[in-house]
This record gives sequence, structure tokens and C-alpha cells, in this order.
Amino acid sequence: MRIETICTGDELLTGLTADTNSTFFQARLLETLGLQVQRNTVVGDVREELTAVMREVAARADVVLVSGGLGPTADDLTVECAAAAKGVGTERNEEAWRSIQARFAERGLRLSANNEKQAWVPKGSEVVINTQGSAPMFVMSLEKARLFFVPGVPTEYRHLVETEVLPRLRTLRGKTQEYRVLKLLKTMGLAESHLEEKVQSVVKVFPQVVFGYRTHPPENHLKLLAVASSPDGAADLAERAAAQCREALGLYLFGEGDDRYSQVVGRLLRARKETVAVAESCTAGNVAALLAQEPGASEYLLGGAVTYQAATKQQWAGVKAETLEKFGEVSNEVAKEMAEGVRAAAGASWGLATTGWAGPKGGTATDPVGTVYLACAGADGTHVRRVLLPGDRQRIQKFAAYGALDVLRRAMLR
Amino acid sequence: MRIETICTGDELLTGLTADTNSTFFQARLLETLGLQVQRNTVVGDVREELTAVMREVAARADVVLVSGGLGPTADDLTVECAAAAKGVGTERNEEAWRSIQARFAERGLRLSANNEKQAWVPKGSEVVINTQGSAPMFVMSLEKARLFFVPGVPTEYRHLVETEVLPRLRTLRGKTQEYRVLKLLKTMGLAESHLEEKVQSVVKVFPQVVFGYRTHPPENHLKLLAVASSPDGAADLAERAAAQCREALGLYLFGEGDDRYSQVVGRLLRARKETVAVAESCTAGNVAALLAQEPGASEYLLGGAVTYQAATKQQWAGVKAETLEKFGEVSNEVAKEMAEGVRAAAGASWGLATTGWAGPKGGTATDPVGTVYLACAGADGTHVRRVLLPGDRQRIQKFAAYGALDVLRRAMLR
Repeated sequence: MRIETICTGDELLTGLTADTNSTFFQARLLETLGLQVQRNTVVGDVREELTAVMREVAARADVVLVSGGLGPTADDLTVECAAAAKGVGTERNEEAWRSIQARFAERGLRLSANNEKQAWVPKGSEVVINTQGSAPMFVMSLEKARLFFVPGVPTEYRHLVETEVLPRLRTLRGKTQEYRVLKLLKTMGLAESHLEEKVQSVVKVFPQVVFGYRTHPPENHLKLLAVASSPDGAADLAERAAAQCREALGLYLFGEGDDRYSQVVGRLLRARKETVAVAESCTAGNVAALLAQEPGASEYLLGGAVTYQAATKQQWAGVKAETLEKFGEVSNEVAKEMAEGVRAAAGASWGLATTGWAGPKGGTATDPVGTVYLACAGADGTHVRRVLLPGDRQRIQKFAAYGALDVLRRAMLR
Repeated sequence: MRIETICTGDELLTGLTADTNSTFFQARLLETLGLQVQRNTVVGDVREELTAVMREVAARADVVLVSGGLGPTADDLTVECAAAAKGVGTERNEEAWRSIQARFAERGLRLSANNEKQAWVPKGSEVVINTQGSAPMFVMSLEKARLFFVPGVPTEYRHLVETEVLPRLRTLRGKTQEYRVLKLLKTMGLAESHLEEKVQSVVKVFPQVVFGYRTHPPENHLKLLAVASSPDGAADLAERAAAQCREALGLYLFGEGDDRYSQVVGRLLRARKETVAVAESCTAGNVAALLAQEPGASEYLLGGAVTYQAATKQQWAGVKAETLEKFGEVSNEVAKEMAEGVRAAAGASWGLATTGWAGPKGGTATDPVGTVYLACAGADGTHVRRVLLPGDRQRIQKFAAYGALDVLRRAMLR
């Protein structure tokens, strides 16, 4: 079953709105039916273009979800274009018209002339009343395809997809010989190319699993899409491939599915009943902010010192003046003292510190812009990792913040 | 000039990632060249499908921006599909290959076998080195169209669009009879509907200017698109409309064009030769991190204390135990003492502080979740603003961080 989507609306082509409706439909389609969209076409509110797209897509696909352009205003062209694409006229659907009138009456609103427009659909369409808005959903066939038309307003779109479109697609799909299960494995500290290398041996063992890679900086994710002739078969296949990948990835693997990096670190701290304090120079609050994204972070995050200058490094993180003078603000030694100092000052189980050159200015011959020292002090001593990060200032700050949490995560898992 | 975009990547069709690259390109295309994209096609990492889409689009369009699928892994198929669509082979571009090798050497990284893949392009392509990543951009012609290929990684995509693609499109576009000038006015603290209300009277005076509104939380932007028959006419029209809008918006207007909020605040501090220190509770480092995004922020950001717990509030921000006990951690009084305490501790011109309920738990009958006290201490005393912010934890933290900078900005402009 070939599935395509068409999204219409000028705002989707002028940079005003990102198309997040499609993302929702795709995710739900895969989760509930194990089906995948083959193509998504985004077009503006242009009569000829929209009509042409409907014709082209209907010639290829079995199922088409069309969204947007069902409003009451002059730039809403979907109904007339659908009728033109099929070569039929339009008709007023009396049930839809009564529902629109009732909706307005209920809210004490005056019907304007263009509201009636929303009750019109291409002749012969099946109409489904939309309980979340005025424009009804309708279903039309064109060539060998079934086209489902829903409004683009996200609440109406999601409601109709969930309650009307997906159940109909389940019926259309009928018994299938192909079921899909997707697993997402998330890694930190591994370049995309090295991630692929690491699981190369697993790829060969599972020809029925599609291996995909995506960069979500600074994370790299591995997608496993297992295809089998039964739901259980697909789930089993995905799990067996995932198990071998987990083995191959070791500590680079930090989480799966919806796991967030800061959540994983927070969960570890909570499980160990430990706390953390942070002293940040180049990351300037990003490490603390990352940790604090998680609900309940106050259980383990005691506090942080943004020691952006030498004076605050001494005052809040207890760095010695001699250390600063002898080694410079960006150094292994200062990072170590910051981590140890903030740990002691806050009485935390762990002290984390960052100091480095975020750029664009700064850096030295041995420590150019992008150099960051990440320190983690614990009961068993202090570990410092030196990294050289590419990219601009904001990227360096972001990667360094995740890097600091990674030093902590690995220290906890050691 | 007909412009289309093609985005490739399974993650764009399985609900994992929304296509925000296209939104960026569309906005910049309109802003800088007054041009609009006619169609955007999203396809997965499927050889036949991607090749077919390139052929179809090239048959219709003059300019095509293709993004994604240029990574080093086996599911990155863009180069081979582009070559197949044109009916040519691929070749290794030596400059790109040297650049990849240099990139890895610089970072002390090991090249894996699949990294070389990124230096290969369809025969006869023009290659542009990508300073932000390994995959180069390349340009190929197919039928009457020019196809620009860029990586899908957002930082690389944006950089190449801005510095390479848009300048080439400007040349391709040549002379036009309709000139557009876009002005972007950026406001803080004004809901979109109120922003529209405030400039309503200006809208009526300038029928040749298209007024658009976009939300870029927590900022709301007003877009003025002036259309005229000469570049000067469009520029003059845009400027006259902008002048009246500036008047209407007053201090809600914080910047224009590419201005970033943190940059505007930094510029004010630098111009006044003043410094700032921050004590953060619920924002947990977000205020300091925002300020430190700007190059040279160390000139005015002395440091910050993330006082996530009562003990650190006393220790780093000098809040009195009595104040904490009497008024509670989330209170006008504690915010005031935090701002004054951190100002004194760091010896800064300004002290900023945040304390509030970011949720999902917490809050009181009088100060529910979303309540945040924002304090700004200066030479003339301390001002506290209480806000009640909707949304989830991360949204509250983000809005509170911007809110704190807004209290400072207004204090400086008073």
C-alpha cells in the first residue's frame, strides 16, 4: 500500500510555519499500523499547482492524506481543486451545513457568507463531521487512490487522523504480510561514521532489518526498522537486532526511544541517591540548565557557579590564584580545581567543571578555539577530559555541556 | 524563476524529525531576494524514489535545493541518485577529499573507510567546500534546472544556504520588475494578537505593504513586506511603514533584522561600560547561558550563581536565612536579595535574579506553577517583576530567562 501526503498552505512555503502535522501522522501511522509514508508534497495556495499535485499523486499512490485549504476564506482552494482534479462539480453536504449552523448557534456567533463554503465538497464524496471545527473531513476516490481530506489546523488534523483516518487505513490495509517495528538507539560521543562501523557486523546478521542513522547534535541515533510477516515476528526481530547493537555500542549507548540525555543522567543520579554541583566557565550555565530541564532536578542538582572570570573562579569555585597564574584559566589544572572546589562548596557527591575557548576570539597555540577541559570530581578522585570541538561559539558551548554530562555519566557507570 | 526543494531522509517520513530546514530557506529566500518556493517534496532514503523525484522536479523547475543524504553511511544515497538521474558516473573531488582529511587530522580523529565516500560527487559537478562539516556542497545541472545539494545537518544547511546558495540565486534571478523589501521588527513581552492591535492604525496607511506576524517564542515578530517598481521605492516604502510601527511599539520593540535578544542586551551593557552578574533559581543557568551566547560576553558577564537550593542561595547570593524562612524560596523578597547579593558578591553594575515554580510539581495557592519573580538590582535600587507563565517546564524556564533580560533591558533604557 503506497501512502503519500499533500500539505497545502502558503504559510508552509514562506517560512512562517514548519509542517509538524505530517510528522504527527507519520509517527502514528508507523506506531499503530506499521506503515510508512513514501512521499510528502508541500504546495502553496495556488489553483493550478494544487490540482496538478493531486492528479500526480493519485496516479501513483493507493492512499493520500491531503491537509489544509479547507477554511472559509478566498485562499482556501482544496475543495475546488479536488473537484477539478477528478473532473466533477461540487455539492453542498446538508449534514455538514446543519452542523456548521448548529456550531455557530451554540456559540452565539453570526454566520458570515463565506461560512457556508465549508459545507461544499466534490460531488460523490463521503463526508465525516468534524467535532473540533467547522470544515468537515471528506473522502474521495481518484484513479486507484483513496484521498482523505482533513483541515490543517493542528488540533482538528490530529483528532481526525486519530479517530477517522487511521481506523480507515487499518481496514484498507486489511491483512498484511508485512509488519514493521522501529527501535531507536541513542549514542553520545560517537561520530555517525564510527557508529555505522561499530554495528557493521550486526547489519550483516539481520538482512530483514533496515539500519538507519541520524545526527541530532551532539547525539547520533541508530534506527532499526524490522520487517516481518507478523507483529510478534517484527518485535522479536527488532529486539534481537537491538540486543546485538547494545552489545556493540557499549557505553556510547546512553538511551533508547524517547530518552533524553539529561533525563538519563538525572535517573542515574537519583538511583544512586547522589547529588551534583557545577562550575562552568565556557559553557556559562548550559550544564546546569541541561540538568534542570528535567522535572524534579532539584533532588540532585544542588547548584552551579558560572565562573566566567578569574575572580569568580576563585570566589565561587575555590580555584587558587597560583593555579590560575601558573596554568592559565583554560587548563587541566584549573578545571580540576573548579570541579573539586564546587563539589566541596556545595557538599555534593559530584563536582563538574568546564573551562575552554568557545571563540570566536581567544585560544593559544596548544589550546586553540574549541579546546575545552571537562572535569568530574567524585569521592574517588577527579577525572579531566580534554576535547577539541569544531563549529561556532554556540555549538562549542552546547557540545561542551553535553560532554561534561558524559564525563559524569561514564564516571557513574564505571 | 520556479524554485523547488527536495528533502531526503527516512527520519522526515517516519515522524522522527520535522522539516525545519525548508522553513529556514523559505524565510531567507523571501527576506533576501523576495522569491518564493513553489513546491517542497520530502522523500525517504529509497534509491528509486529519490532518483525519480529529482528527475520530476528538474523537468519543472529552474532551481532546486536538495538537502540531506550526503552523510558517510550506507543509507546516504543522494550522490548516487543525482548521478543516476543525470545518467553520469561519480568522481572523487580531490579538494573535498583533502579538506576531509585535513578536518580529521586537525581534530586528531581517525578516518574510517566510509569517510572517503563524502568526497565523491556526480561527474562534472561544481564543488563548494563546507567549512562546517565534512560533506561538501555541490551544484549540478539537469535538464533546464540548476540543482544545489547541501547536507541536511541544520548548522551546515543554514551556513551553506546563507553563504553559497542565496548569493548564487541572486545572480540567477537577475533583473526583475517587482522589487520587494522586507523589514523585520522584533518585540518582547507582547502577545501576537496585541502586536497586531498595536500596529492596526499603520496597516491602514500602507496598503502596498504586506503585514505579517510570526511567533518565535518568546519573541513576536512583525514582518513588513513592501512591494514597489524600483528598489529605492520598495526600500523607502518599507522604511516609512517601519518608522510608524517603531513609534507604535515603543519599548516592546527590542531589535530588527538579524538582531538577537541577548546581543541587544549585550550591546547596551557594552555601550554603558557596565557589567552584570546573575543569580538563578528556576532558570538554572539559562540567563547566564543566554548572555554568554554572544562573542565577547566575558566583557560584561562577570559570573552567575545557580542557586538551585536554599543553601546555595545563602552561600553564593547572600540571601538571609530569615528571608528564606519568612517568605519562602519563591518570593519577591528572596528574588530581591538574590539580585542584590550576587551584584555585591561579583562587584557588578547590575545583579539579576530569578526564582519561581517551573513545574510540573510545586507552586502554592497564591503562586501557582508558572509564577516567577524576576529581579534586577542596580545603583538606583532593585526592581522586581512578577510574571505568570503558561506552558511546560522548559517553556517556563526559557520565558523566565528572556524575562529577566527584559527587566534589565528596560532598566537600562529608562
